Amino acid sequence: MHLLPTSSPPSLVRLLVSALISPSSSLLRPLQPPISLLSRRPLTASTLPMPDGDDSLLRKALADKLATIQAQANAVRQLKASGAPKSDIDAAVQSLNALKLDKASLETQFLQSATNNRDAFRQALVNTLERRLFYMPSFKIYRGVAGLYDYGPPGCAVKSNVLAFWRQHFVLEENMLEVDCPCVTPEIVLKASGHVEKFTDLMVKDEKTGTCYRADHLLKDYCKDKLEKDLTITAEKAAELKHVLALLDDLSAEKLGAKIKEYGITAPDTKNHLSDPYPFNLMFQTSIGPSGLSPGYMRPETAQGIFVNFKDLYYYNGNKLPFAAAQIGQAFRNEISPRQGLLRVREFTLAEIEHFVDPQDKSHPKFSEIASLEFLMFPREGQMCGQSAERLQIGEAVAKGIVNNETLGYFIGRVYLFLTRLGIDKERLRFRQHLANEMAHYAADCWDAEIECSYGWIECVGIADRSAYDLCAHSDKSGVALVAQEKYSEPREVEKLVIAPVKKELGLAFKGNQKMVTEALEVMDEKVALQMKADLESKGEVEFYICSLGKNVTVKKNMVSISKEKKKEHQRVFTPSVIEPSFGIGRIIYCLFEHAFYTRPSKAGDEQLNVFRFPPLVAPIKCTVFPLVQNQQYEEVAKFISKSLTAAGISHKIDITGTSIGKRYARTDELGVPFAVTVDSTSSVTIRERDSKDQIRVNVENVAAVVKEVTDGQSTWDDILKAYPLHSSGSVDEE
Amino acid sequence: MHLLPTSSPPSLVRLLVSALISPSSSLLRPLQPPISLLSRRPLTASTLPMPDGDDSLLRKALADKLATIQAQANAVRQLKASGAPKSDIDAAVQSLNALKLDKASLETQFLQSATNNRDAFRQALVNTLERRLFYMPSFKIYRGVAGLYDYGPPGCAVKSNVLAFWRQHFVLEENMLEVDCPCVTPEIVLKASGHVEKFTDLMVKDEKTGTCYRADHLLKDYCKDKLEKDLTITAEKAAELKHVLALLDDLSAEKLGAKIKEYGITAPDTKNHLSDPYPFNLMFQTSIGPSGLSPGYMRPETAQGIFVNFKDLYYYNGNKLPFAAAQIGQAFRNEISPRQGLLRVREFTLAEIEHFVDPQDKSHPKFSEIASLEFLMFPREGQMCGQSAERLQIGEAVAKGIVNNETLGYFIGRVYLFLTRLGIDKERLRFRQHLANEMAHYAADCWDAEIECSYGWIECVGIADRSAYDLCAHSDKSGVALVAQEKYSEPREVEKLVIAPVKKELGLAFKGNQKMVTEALEVMDEKVALQMKADLESKGEVEFYICSLGKNVTVKKNMVSISKEKKKEHQRVFTPSVIEPSFGIGRIIYCLFEHAFYTRPSKAGDEQLNVFRFPPLVAPIKCTVFPLVQNQQYEEVAKFISKSLTAAGISHKIDITGTSIGKRYARTDELGVPFAVTVDSTSSVTIRERDSKDQIRVNVENVAAVVKEVTDGQSTWDDILKAYPLHSSGSVDEE
Repeated sequence: MHLLPTSSPPSLVRLLVSALISPSSSLLRPLQPPISLLSRRPLTASTLPMPDGDDSLLRKALADKLATIQAQANAVRQLKASGAPKSDIDAAVQSLNALKLDKASLETQFLQSATNNRDAFRQALVNTLERRLFYMPSFKIYRGVAGLYDYGPPGCAVKSNVLAFWRQHFVLEENMLEVDCPCVTPEIVLKASGHVEKFTDLMVKDEKTGTCYRADHLLKDYCKDKLEKDLTITAEKAAELKHVLALLDDLSAEKLGAKIKEYGITAPDTKNHLSDPYPFNLMFQTSIGPSGLSPGYMRPETAQGIFVNFKDLYYYNGNKLPFAAAQIGQAFRNEISPRQGLLRVREFTLAEIEHFVDPQDKSHPKFSEIASLEFLMFPREGQMCGQSAERLQIGEAVAKGIVNNETLGYFIGRVYLFLTRLGIDKERLRFRQHLANEMAHYAADCWDAEIECSYGWIECVGIADRSAYDLCAHSDKSGVALVAQEKYSEPREVEKLVIAPVKKELGLAFKGNQKMVTEALEVMDEKVALQMKADLESKGEVEFYICSLGKNVTVKKNMVSISKEKKKEHQRVFTPSVIEPSFGIGRIIYCLFEHAFYTRPSKAGDEQLNVFRFPPLVAPIKCTVFPLVQNQQYEEVAKFISKSLTAAGISHKIDITGTSIGKRYARTDELGVPFAVTVDSTSSVTIRERDSKDQIRVNVENVAAVVKEVTDGQSTWDDILKAYPLHSSGSVDEE
Repeated sequence: MHLLPTSSPPSLVRLLVSALISPSSSLLRPLQPPISLLSRRPLTASTLPMPDGDDSLLRKALADKLATIQAQANAVRQLKASGAPKSDIDAAVQSLNALKLDKASLETQFLQSATNNRDAFRQALVNTLERRLFYMPSFKIYRGVAGLYDYGPPGCAVKSNVLAFWRQHFVLEENMLEVDCPCVTPEIVLKASGHVEKFTDLMVKDEKTGTCYRADHLLKDYCKDKLEKDLTITAEKAAELKHVLALLDDLSAEKLGAKIKEYGITAPDTKNHLSDPYPFNLMFQTSIGPSGLSPGYMRPETAQGIFVNFKDLYYYNGNKLPFAAAQIGQAFRNEISPRQGLLRVREFTLAEIEHFVDPQDKSHPKFSEIASLEFLMFPREGQMCGQSAERLQIGEAVAKGIVNNETLGYFIGRVYLFLTRLGIDKERLRFRQHLANEMAHYAADCWDAEIECSYGWIECVGIADRSAYDLCAHSDKSGVALVAQEKYSEPREVEKLVIAPVKKELGLAFKGNQKMVTEALEVMDEKVALQMKADLESKGEVEFYICSLGKNVTVKKNMVSISKEKKKEHQRVFTPSVIEPSFGIGRIIYCLFEHAFYTRPSKAGDEQLNVFRFPPLVAPIKCTVFPLVQNQQYEEVAKFISKSLTAAGISHKIDITGTSIGKRYARTDELGVPFAVTVDSTSSVTIRERDSKDQIRVNVENVAAVVKEVTDGQSTWDDILKAYPLHSSGSVDEE
């Protein structure tokens, strides 16, 4: 396990980087690996794998060095050719060798720098997470299954804390209607939603072994590899590869296939030829019931369960808009080649909200409560112009029309509060607006909450105004109207076209064809009818084409009356718009792990200790209780404190092993436990805070109350420090 | 909606029933339908569909009445034949007609009685549950899918309260290791567990249409129907049908097929012939990854995810036994023909515990905490002898060996506490021991927590001592040893057999065959080896059959040394036993709905109002806030109270509609909301308790504290009544 220690000497890369970032931000997060800072710069797609600025600087430094070496080598050759004195030649050769050494060092730095720091950080994190069973590959004793992970005890506790807070922050505080629908879904529902036809990824097959790969992943890997490891490519070539990476998500099967051929990309394991790309549906298919005749799928999202219940939920809400329904549950995507650990998996927990709103009024009554929040936003315009994400006030963003409407803006603000309260670093969180080509044609606007981690900027929450699309789709397929009514406080007058065929006259004129003529007259659209009215008034008759007869007939003035009449309407019937914040819980948790993880040297300085700086809200255990030494009196005090913590509803653990207190602190720092109570007397004990390592002295009777206060969020540790004496390190010192 | 009102006149059935049950229990639960009382009598299988005693009494009354009618008809005939006076004949005919009327009335009662009361109760309950969106059929706008249900807002809240309490009661209080594993499971795991081969139900097909049915369901329906509706069957026939019902779960495919043929059972919808029964695997099958070559299933239970993680979890627990792991999650069973609403569904939430313990020591350190609990138990013996469930102290049951061990007994006690605290009626909860033929051969003992509802006694929790079966199965299949070690405090001496072939002599004697002979000697079991030792000592040589050579060889005394030696061992390696409490959360919730549901007349007496008597712990909303009349001052007070309730973390709802206060109470009684705050002044308000309708008067500032105290379980309503003045019904009276 090795992280770049903060005290290591500055490398060239670091110096280059420090020129590009504001010093204050690096001070704020001193223990984050430098790579995470590098990539906070203009990106045209969220998945751009490599920081831009610094690698071009390094490339230039290397190119300059090569030129100098060439020149020096020429100089040496000239000196030799000209029979210069040996001492001169030796000096020139020595200088050439020094330059070559410099170049080798630069190359090493180039290769190791960003990528390697990032990889080392991630390796240290993942080692800790798997060793302490935050999560682990599922079915490990059977060699596992790609893309499936188990949460072990501390991971499971973090997950259940995140979900409990989600329920508190969204469902309870916003009075949402929570539902819980099955994962097994009949085909017709997913045909209506479009998933059966369109929920696909492009796949290529190894032509000899049949092994499958995601076509875009192979192209992406090829481009990244070239950019990161091939020093011979030209600036033009580098620009082209970056362009391909930026457009990756938009490439058609044909274009993707053409690029794969052009670059000569082969199967990674065998180097065999690859098939042309073809779509593979990502849903897990199954069969419902014993007949084998009812195809079903494991749901790819939880949203459809809400849409099909719209009618009942609208009724439950007293037939009033707006209201929101919410669902937490498992979703399934049969990824072709899962990778990136918890970020791209085959089964995951989603938490989704569908907020139904009148399309004519997307204001939000509580918007003012979040309007003054300021955070990183990355509007469409900025992305197109190559600018970086900018700090905007959400109230202003809505006022200026950058964000489409208040309700969308309200949810962006609430998502910001949710994520930052969980412990997501607000400097590494941005809201990125979808580009026009990323959005479905029906969407009014869409913003992703992206969190930066060692894999780049990761979409963790999508917040979309999907207009009436989903409800219309299910209305059409099911034949059940999924609509809302607005009752007018008083009836409104509307002008309506009235077409009244005069059956008697029509019968006389057209006999057996009367019915077809009548029907054709009745279904005329407004424009045609008004034209006919004018013509009949001016000319007395008009030629009229009857589709069902395949010919023109002559319609006379006495055969039809066309008029515009004023009618009273008592209500408006419409399909609500839906605004959908959709949370990938596993992705949020993984990013939280990255943002919370750091290392610090042990007291003896002989090893790096791992710490998760989880806020109490998400920490898997809130508190530990340690008797300082093994002794019956202290154990009894510890048990008394444990009981009072249980009564206060605080999850905690007692550790009465004889292990040194420093080791016990280190063990629980690695689980992110924020507070440790150490029993070193029978009357008062110390409480230690994880990150500052500050200790205070508190009477035994008050321990539970103090821990509750600071874990419930009523007080901060700083508040507590003001009320209790700081304990000078003595007997209960760290190791 | 119609429930038997408590004041309805006693029917014959009721009178018959009341002779069979203790009067006190009917007083305790006055509003439960009588049927629920009927079935509390000896059963030999938990699924016996019909109460025994009362239907035989009614049958006898009917048979007696028929005999009397026959006799009277004969009398009339004789009177007519003998030319008796017309007045005598008329009187006899009148009396015959009266008897026939009696008989008709008895028949009606027989048919309607038990079944119909039960059905009416259930219909009223299910109507309420579906109308208030506690749950509803999934994908209803597409006509639904049998066996799949959604929880709507109040049902979802109840479910999440039940799960939160489960986590508190088991995971936190018992320090269990919670894990969270995927639903998608590769085939190899479920081959090891036996599910691929054995997780089947017997199915029959309509020979013409191909429609599938569960064979045992058809037989069960046939027997129930005959018993309930056919008045002509003999007592012998009735006994036979009951016997078939009792044995239903144990019938082989052949026997089930034979019975179906014997009774002439055909397809219910078409009356077509049925195929022979054949096994249908109940797992939803799917395919993992794009190749189509990795079969997988949706897990049928959550337990396997824990077993395959045993090694990591044991390590996480400091390599110490006992410890328990727990998991809450979805499980899937592709039922052939789902029915009984929430009780038999295709997807459901399980909460499972696997408690790993040394098979040589199944004591439990906290057993004394539950040992004095007393509740209904139904041991194997009692079931075999036709006795009823009896009230036993769990401590005694373990001491007497009725329950196999302390740990199993401890969990039975904890399950009892869990269910009764949720609101399950302790008079309608029993722990039934599995009969020998119900248990797997490896199980040491098994008890089901059965809850009585309108469908009969339903298995809601299984608590089994599964010995080492599951860990052994996965050890064998995976090749990874899933074992525990007990380190001895000091090394122990054990006698071990040592077989030492003398290679030199063997080489001389057998040349090229030496290796085969050596190996055969080394793998002899103890008995064979000791016999050889004795023979060699007495005879000097012995004939020995070598499998790999396919012939005997002669082994001489100098070729092998066999001895028993004492060795020191430092630890014992063994496969832990597992004790598994497994909770069907949906079934528990459905039974809770039944136990909590009752009706009471409205104040005007013109309608029956529905109430759920949920304890605050599970109530979907804890409290409502109503301004008595629409007025700004009251609304402001209501909002103040709402804010203080939010701050105290109490889920609640404001209703500021102008609806009458009685209607607002009725609406929320039907959701099981335990407390209603009515704002009828700006200084103090009333708090009403749902079931007693008692109201107290509390200052506005104290409302949140009082509601918190009584919903957190710190105080009961009775405690509160002592501290606050009872509000005499006045302005805020019920409707």
